Amino acid sequence: MDFGVPPAVRESIVRVAEREDFGYPYWPGEDPVVEAFEERMAGRHGWRPSPGRTRVFTDLIQILQVMIEHATAPGDGVAIHVPSYPPFLAAVARSGRRIVPLPMLWDETGWGFSAEGLTDRLRAQGCRMVVLVNPHNPTGRVLTRAELSAVAAAAEELDLVVLADEIHADLVYSPHRHVPFASLGADAAARTITATSATKAFNIAGLRCAVAHVGPEHVLESLAAAPLDYFGTPSVLSRVATVAAWREGGAWLDDLLRTLDDNRRTLADWAAASPWDLRHHTPQATYLGWLDFAGTPLGDRSPAAHLERHAGVKLSEGAEFSQHTDVATASFARVNFATSPANLREILSRVSAGLRAAPAA
Amino acid sequence: MDFGVPPAVRESIVRVAEREDFGYPYWPGEDPVVEAFEERMAGRHGWRPSPGRTRVFTDLIQILQVMIEHATAPGDGVAIHVPSYPPFLAAVARSGRRIVPLPMLWDETGWGFSAEGLTDRLRAQGCRMVVLVNPHNPTGRVLTRAELSAVAAAAEELDLVVLADEIHADLVYSPHRHVPFASLGADAAARTITATSATKAFNIAGLRCAVAHVGPEHVLESLAAAPLDYFGTPSVLSRVATVAAWREGGAWLDDLLRTLDDNRRTLADWAAASPWDLRHHTPQATYLGWLDFAGTPLGDRSPAAHLERHAGVKLSEGAEFSQHTDVATASFARVNFATSPANLREILSRVSAGLRAAPAA
Ligand SMILES: Cc1ncc(COP(=O)(O)O)c(C=O)c1O
Ligand SMILES: Cc1ncc(COP(=O)(O)O)c(C=O)c1O
Repeated sequence: MDFGVPPAVRESIVRVAEREDFGYPYWPGEDPVVEAFEERMAGRHGWRPSPGRTRVFTDLIQILQVMIEHATAPGDGVAIHVPSYPPFLAAVARSGRRIVPLPMLWDETGWGFSAEGLTDRLRAQGCRMVVLVNPHNPTGRVLTRAELSAVAAAAEELDLVVLADEIHADLVYSPHRHVPFASLGADAAARTITATSATKAFNIAGLRCAVAHVGPEHVLESLAAAPLDYFGTPSVLSRVATVAAWREGGAWLDDLLRTLDDNRRTLADWAAASPWDLRHHTPQATYLGWLDFAGTPLGDRSPAAHLERHAGVKLSEGAEFSQHTDVATASFARVNFATSPANLREILSRVSAGLRAAPAA
Repeated sequence: MDFGVPPAVRESIVRVAEREDFGYPYWPGEDPVVEAFEERMAGRHGWRPSPGRTRVFTDLIQILQVMIEHATAPGDGVAIHVPSYPPFLAAVARSGRRIVPLPMLWDETGWGFSAEGLTDRLRAQGCRMVVLVNPHNPTGRVLTRAELSAVAAAAEELDLVVLADEIHADLVYSPHRHVPFASLGADAAARTITATSATKAFNIAGLRCAVAHVGPEHVLESLAAAPLDYFGTPSVLSRVATVAAWREGGAWLDDLLRTLDDNRRTLADWAAASPWDLRHHTPQATYLGWLDFAGTPLGDRSPAAHLERHAGVKLSEGAEFSQHTDVATASFARVNFATSPANLREILSRVSAGLRAAPAA
């Protein structure tokens, strides 16, 4: 992201630095990160986390790994929408669990997934966990209550743990609304691990502070039995920055969302106006656009690599987003539009130039 | 510690904050924390870590836990000098390994331990790992090459992994010299995990950045097989602060050591001049003093708790330092003298007053 951070985040760090107060953290009452998380979920997303169930980690990939280890066994199936944030697929594969891909499907109205026969498919595949990334990276979909409920019904029937990665929840464009999975009802709450952080919306990925709200009792117990401090702890600076972002970053976030909203329209207009059949749906959340180059001269021949070499723009290669599965995403690339409008226009015009110059297949 | 941090540490953080550059860290070559660690060990402690064997964690307790899990099995014996930093004893006990205490022994010349029959004792106790905290917390001993070599010989004969916690290595008073355990020879290097950080000498415990240099091949392989990012990662700010401390904190550290050196003498003089038989040896390293109140009216009746209640000073209770073992440390307390000379004098005069007012046993 090219936008710096909220002033309150910068100031929270400078304040600690000026006090030179880098000793062991100490708080008399509840962990301030947990408190700020609970407040934000209730205030912004209408979900009241249960007290005493939130654990602090350094990042979401870590949370995914830790929860896979504590909630499933080697060989178990782990369902996840594909395309997917590539490290998630790498992590599931590396953990010795089987990826059960839930393909995201294109139609003229947008990206979706088929809930038909979902329970049977998950049962047949020996699924024990669903990793539900919502808002979705890379398609930018904000799943509706109905879509989430279909997953919740299957999870209930098969007694699955749901790991809800809601890291992009603060980056949703109106009129779409983020529905926390754990807010769907008592059963969902009891089987959901909600993972999030301030790192995406507030541009502090390097600070490494994330939280997991652990609904399932057996996972909470398993974590409690882990060695002391086994998963490490975030820095005091990352903690104050996270609290400052969630508590005082509102105005900055509103500004950011206005810019990103313009940018996603610029991207969509450009794709629609392009002389090729460049398939794209305006993202409902995130600063990520998912583009299908199948109808362009690049086809499925590594569009991102080609555009980096020949047009000097860096997109993320679509094939990565389906690694370890048989879902086909090689004709896609993901563009990050968290940049200035001028920069975005430059990126898009370079992509156009790259496509014009590309040799036909 | 009441001394702030080196200017370079503060500035390294403010610089990142002013650039608002909190994205994912990126370095083209070697991890800068690892590079700075390797440089410091070679430059200050005469030990050249092997390339490619250093891993970054958030803290030493985490490293201890992770290494116990990856180098030993439940039920194995883990030897450690007692008294010991209390979380280490708690950690070993919680991991389901057995603590094999190596008692630190008092004599008129100082604290030591008996190397006689060490191999046989460790063998008889089913020991698989030695946790060697050097410089030692709480006695402040800097073990000599001869003492270290005795441990190394036993480790070689029994094929033990040695976890060398050298977190206080930069806080050694002349003429004592820190000898890294891994520098003893090729065999020691191949069985030693050296754990350290900039957090003690440079007063940044809350920043959470630590390193482990892993000599044993099987531990390195076991770590490599762990889930991706399972142990989390330190913040970018903690990384730049660690590098700044190690590379540019020299003059600040020299000043600090002068103050601490005066303080340790103040403490020793006070203990020697006290009207009670207050046993104490001047620490050779650290900012920690280990005091035996057996010959005072407090005896072994929780001296720290008594002094906190009745004299308004906070020492660490000796009994904690032998938890889960049968070593007797209930008459001890540990004083932290990383404070101004005036403050230290105030602390010591309060302890004197507390002792004068204490009821006889
Ligand atoms: C959906 C999703 N989850 C997790 C992450 C990574 O989070 P972290 O840096 O906390 O591991 C990302 C980063 O882009 C993401 O898009
Ligand atoms: C010998 C020793 N090891 C480890 C630690 C704790 O280190 P960390 O904060 O990195 O877990 C301490 C803290 O006092 C210590 O004295």
